[in-house]
Amino acid sequence: MRPSGRAPDQMRDISFEPNFTRHAEGSVLVSFGDTRVLVTASVEEKVPPFLRGKGKGWVTAEYGMLPRATHTRGNREAAKGKQSGRTQEIQRLIGRSLRAVVDLPKLGERQITLDCDVIQADGGTRTASISGAWVALRIAVDKLLDSKALTEDPIRTQVAAVSCGIFKGTPVLDLDYDEDSSAGSDGNFVLTGDGNIVEAQLTAEGELFDEEQLLRLLRLARIGCDEIFAAQRKAAGK
Amino acid sequence: MRPSGRAPDQMRDISFEPNFTRHAEGSVLVSFGDTRVLVTASVEEKVPPFLRGKGKGWVTAEYGMLPRATHTRGNREAAKGKQSGRTQEIQRLIGRSLRAVVDLPKLGERQITLDCDVIQADGGTRTASISGAWVALRIAVDKLLDSKALTEDPIRTQVAAVSCGIFKGTPVLDLDYDEDSSAGSDGNFVLTGDGNIVEAQLTAEGELFDEEQLLRLLRLARIGCDEIFAAQRKAAGK
Amino acid sequence: MRPSGRAPDQMRDISFEPNFTRHAEGSVLVSFGDTRVLVTASVEEKVPPFLRGKGKGWVTAEYGMLPRATHTRGNREAAKGKQSGRTQEIQRLIGRSLRAVVDLPKLGERQITLDCDVIQADGGTRTASISGAWVALRIAVDKLLDSKALTEDPIRTQVAAVSCGIFKGTPVLDLDYDEDSSAGSDGNFVLTGDGNIVEAQLTAEGELFDEEQLLRLLRLARIGCDEIFAAQRKAAGK
Amino acid sequence: MRPSGRAPDQMRDISFEPNFTRHAEGSVLVSFGDTRVLVTASVEEKVPPFLRGKGKGWVTAEYGMLPRATHTRGNREAAKGKQSGRTQEIQRLIGRSLRAVVDLPKLGERQITLDCDVIQADGGTRTASISGAWVALRIAVDKLLDSKALTEDPIRTQVAAVSCGIFKGTPVLDLDYDEDSSAGSDGNFVLTGDGNIVEAQLTAEGELFDEEQLLRLLRLARIGCDEIFAAQRKAAGK
Amino acid sequence: MRPSGRAPDQMRDISFEPNFTRHAEGSVLVSFGDTRVLVTASVEEKVPPFLRGKGKGWVTAEYGMLPRATHTRGNREAAKGKQSGRTQEIQRLIGRSLRAVVDLPKLGERQITLDCDVIQADGGTRTASISGAWVALRIAVDKLLDSKALTEDPIRTQVAAVSCGIFKGTPVLDLDYDEDSSAGSDGNFVLTGDGNIVEAQLTAEGELFDEEQLLRLLRLARIGCDEIFAAQRKAAGK
Amino acid sequence: MRPSGRAPDQMRDISFEPNFTRHAEGSVLVSFGDTRVLVTASVEEKVPPFLRGKGKGWVTAEYGMLPRATHTRGNREAAKGKQSGRTQEIQRLIGRSLRAVVDLPKLGERQITLDCDVIQADGGTRTASISGAWVALRIAVDKLLDSKALTEDPIRTQVAAVSCGIFKGTPVLDLDYDEDSSAGSDGNFVLTGDGNIVEAQLTAEGELFDEEQLLRLLRLARIGCDEIFAAQRKAAGK
Repeated sequence: MRPSGRAPDQMRDISFEPNFTRHAEGSVLVSFGDTRVLVTASVEEKVPPFLRGKGKGWVTAEYGMLPRATHTRGNREAAKGKQSGRTQEIQRLIGRSLRAVVDLPKLGERQITLDCDVIQADGGTRTASISGAWVALRIAVDKLLDSKALTEDPIRTQVAAVSCGIFKGTPVLDLDYDEDSSAGSDGNFVLTGDGNIVEAQLTAEGELFDEEQLLRLLRLARIGCDEIFAAQRKAAGK
Repeated sequence: MRPSGRAPDQMRDISFEPNFTRHAEGSVLVSFGDTRVLVTASVEEKVPPFLRGKGKGWVTAEYGMLPRATHTRGNREAAKGKQSGRTQEIQRLIGRSLRAVVDLPKLGERQITLDCDVIQADGGTRTASISGAWVALRIAVDKLLDSKALTEDPIRTQVAAVSCGIFKGTPVLDLDYDEDSSAGSDGNFVLTGDGNIVEAQLTAEGELFDEEQLLRLLRLARIGCDEIFAAQRKAAGK
Repeated sequence: MRPSGRAPDQMRDISFEPNFTRHAEGSVLVSFGDTRVLVTASVEEKVPPFLRGKGKGWVTAEYGMLPRATHTRGNREAAKGKQSGRTQEIQRLIGRSLRAVVDLPKLGERQITLDCDVIQADGGTRTASISGAWVALRIAVDKLLDSKALTEDPIRTQVAAVSCGIFKGTPVLDLDYDEDSSAGSDGNFVLTGDGNIVEAQLTAEGELFDEEQLLRLLRLARIGCDEIFAAQRKAAGK
Repeated sequence: MRPSGRAPDQMRDISFEPNFTRHAEGSVLVSFGDTRVLVTASVEEKVPPFLRGKGKGWVTAEYGMLPRATHTRGNREAAKGKQSGRTQEIQRLIGRSLRAVVDLPKLGERQITLDCDVIQADGGTRTASISGAWVALRIAVDKLLDSKALTEDPIRTQVAAVSCGIFKGTPVLDLDYDEDSSAGSDGNFVLTGDGNIVEAQLTAEGELFDEEQLLRLLRLARIGCDEIFAAQRKAAGK
Repeated sequence: MRPSGRAPDQMRDISFEPNFTRHAEGSVLVSFGDTRVLVTASVEEKVPPFLRGKGKGWVTAEYGMLPRATHTRGNREAAKGKQSGRTQEIQRLIGRSLRAVVDLPKLGERQITLDCDVIQADGGTRTASISGAWVALRIAVDKLLDSKALTEDPIRTQVAAVSCGIFKGTPVLDLDYDEDSSAGSDGNFVLTGDGNIVEAQLTAEGELFDEEQLLRLLRLARIGCDEIFAAQRKAAGK
Repeated sequence: MRPSGRAPDQMRDISFEPNFTRHAEGSVLVSFGDTRVLVTASVEEKVPPFLRGKGKGWVTAEYGMLPRATHTRGNREAAKGKQSGRTQEIQRLIGRSLRAVVDLPKLGERQITLDCDVIQADGGTRTASISGAWVALRIAVDKLLDSKALTEDPIRTQVAAVSCGIFKGTPVLDLDYDEDSSAGSDGNFVLTGDGNIVEAQLTAEGELFDEEQLLRLLRLARIGCDEIFAAQRKAAGK
């Protein structure tokens, strides 16, 4: 039995509240249960130095957690003077996941930065961030298309992510904090709207796992992502 | 005429949405027009080293702005590895303002940290932060009183803050970004519920000012803070 | 009774020793009683990036305190690897105060940096810094005028600063360390030679204050600044 | 055809040179083809603060690359003043992988740090590091057993890692730099001597992948790890 | 011919102005010609962690240069966030030199920190710092002896330093900035009042040197240090 | 009697293993007894900003020590976020020593960086680094000559370094860790193949020294460097 009473293949309630803030070219408040992440997409008409003059764009991400997003207050990374290894690992994953569905040459020489700031954390902040980032990116790119700054859509398909894990011996979908902190193995799957995989990552936390379990978790992830894809399309008005 | 069409002594719509997040002992989303700040109060049962064993508590604040809270994206302070001088100046002001209305010995040997994170900025983020911080603190202290961790209320009175400035020669209340960026002088007043002043600070940005103008702005601030005090009481259920 | 035996409206002995060092374009050792600050003005024929090509100059300040300027040794900020919030707040104030009396377009595309280094501290280091910075700036600008690098004087008027506070219930002028550390409220006023205000800032440290007290302190500040203005003119040979 | 002429399921020559340095409790120079990593295991009789008094030990890792381990010289992280996100991600993975096969309570209140320093890089530095770290750890733990500091072996089984990827449409084992920099997808598998998985991680770099490809790469990884396990045992004298 | 017109074995005018500041237990403004360094000695009744409980004291030094001590303004190290290699090298040398003449067990479990801050630089700042540090230390230790905190003098003898170099083929004593920046070789000698050497360091800058030149410079250093020793004794009232 | 049983003027076994790694333009693993340093020379076709357009090259060095190169594990400088004063002092010395034998205009507008990474430490890491750096530089420059990128050899002569010290009253050559940690005085001499001195540096650690001792150590250094010169030439194929 899951602490939340959910079935093994049941997602938490997910929602995307588009245009949550007004300055960013794209923004969304994404909720996976009690996990809430504000994602903004900022378009800049320049690319990082290593891409200058190469006729293509860039999509990157930054991630942060408000100090009291969690049960006990964490130190503010700006005050400590550096981002943790965990933060950097997550923001690298988000950027990589979004770039996997964007045709960078079609984006032109511009950069879109996806800022994912966790307002409240209850497990799955990185998967909520990736899923929300697609919506913020979609909104920002639609504005570029509407304004004719872009003539062709550089977004090839949707991308979404969900966590899965072995909780008390049972493979379950979309772990919340209680499950995440005691799961034997857990991981994250980043899938695309056309049925492919961008990233599969599964880690033994307390118990090792085998090939069969890896496959069962991947299948759960497909169930979860399909639900997320539908919600993303609705939020983005597609 | 103000860009927003407001009268010189007219505040923007202000609102306090208490309990915006669930982990913190106190939290509120405060809005001054389009400026929105999430404030959380975190209670810890320990004090900083310089206060250990002195039988009194501490109230401190940290301030941050999400990278895309503003019109153009700013660098993330955690990624830069340091907080700007502006950030530090603001968080020192917030802490000082709240401590002015708290009886620290009555708080006992515990620290309350007020995290003020700007979700969206349109001028007046520091005054919204101070005003919201009082509500978050009030909620957190009420929980301590309810649980009998505290037997006497350490909060002496309310505290609120508002910005004022000389905009195109006219003293105006509660500057928004458009006004703030072109005001001749502007400043912030931090006032208490019992009619006193915690901090008065007025700076010439483009035009010098005189004593009479300082007084007129202080009087505008009283008008604004009275409105904030009423909203604070309502949000805190008093 | 003040610890020093001074009358409430009496400044400490103030002195400006111009040309204290030889490399800087302007330099002065300013003393407010036992507070001694070395201020140098350095002229560079370039402006910061945000001003390039805009046809105007910039005046900025940096502030530091030697580790043993104070009663007990403080950590060296260079060794700690960062400037404190207090340091940054003070250097922002000094820069802002000086810019308020300089016509930046008349300065041309050059930057003048005012380095204020506290050799010995006894309260009022920021006000001594501002007051001394004007002298160092005046000397440096006079050299630019003498050498015809400038044809019009960009300095509009004098600027000086002094601290005031409520000490044991009495408003007093120019607080020394003993007064500063036990004042109920204190603040700093930055005034100009033509009678205007650049910055008024008053903070309740232990006791709140009211409008009348704010005004009395402002009037004390005028008395103090008039004395400083006279000493500045003498030091600058005007 | 692979640039190196290897068959798709063929590892590079691998070797473990134990006791490469003399001060560390365990050390090994591991080579996967031209990739060479020096791994040392340092035993300290204390644990990090979060584990004090809990009756169990800790295994952690640090990773670094000599500036000219690579084709072009990279900046020295010590000189830049921070470790890259990539470095932190890798050292977190190494630590996690080794902890997965260690019974921490049996280790007692001591910490073993595995320093993995890349002398020469040609792809697969993180998998060579993990594989070598097991040998260094084994040597260090054997010394603790020999000296009776430990009475029970805390190492449950072997752990090894290898990279796999889709190179020009073909799943291949143990990518070298040439393959790694142009693979469509690649990832790392961390497997244990008793047939389980510690970590499976596969990322689409240029082309998305599907479930079948994930499985084929996992099977290649088993082939590679079996070869590594044999070499580890020989190096550790088992 | 030296730019200053001095004879090869002629020092610049040197002076020690004791008790230049009032808070430090010892202080002196030392001048070697236009080079002026403020040195303070701060006594703390504790030792660094590595010496705790060992029944002996410590003498250490920090060094800094005010940004405009030099011909052109240098960046403030506190603002850059780190001390340069040169600064660290110098402060290590100063500490080592003073410790060489102090009997640390006789000092008891206390630390004396010598802060050497360069007010104005014209070559030889490290040698002026060492020479001045002895005076500040002497004054501070005399206070400890006067107050009976110490009963035996821990200072064994004097220590002084001077630079020497080969300028246009001629060995010269006490290089000023003009000489220093074009010397073929230069170095620093730290000598004691009883005729021994604490540190000899000579570096080829543009021309290599031989054993005979090393000896001639050492002999010049003796001449210079004898003059400094006399001035130190006078300043310290011995 | 020396702990190692060596005669006072006897070096440890020294060896240079050229081309230890494959990516660098020059590389060598240098051993002075148990001290082993990997030195690589990296050629870049650009110079640092202060030399741009001046028609000459630059030779610089960086130094690091693997965390477990020493008896007890030291902190990784990259993880601490800064290089120690000792590291910076050493790398400045290495760069200076190599530049002393290079004709920088003949090198053309290119920079050669010598990375000296200590694999295992047993005293004398800086002198082994300098001696090895010459070999790595020689190999790299020979490649530039072979490829006709250079037509004239910019290396004037050899450079080598060795430590000497007074151990239990006896002047000895090439101190190992045991001697180094208890020597009364020790220092480093950097000598050239044509009999000159680049750097002589001798420091009293526990006992002061005199001129005669300085000379005796210098003479020991000549014996040691002659042996190193022969080994360097052999390693570089000269």
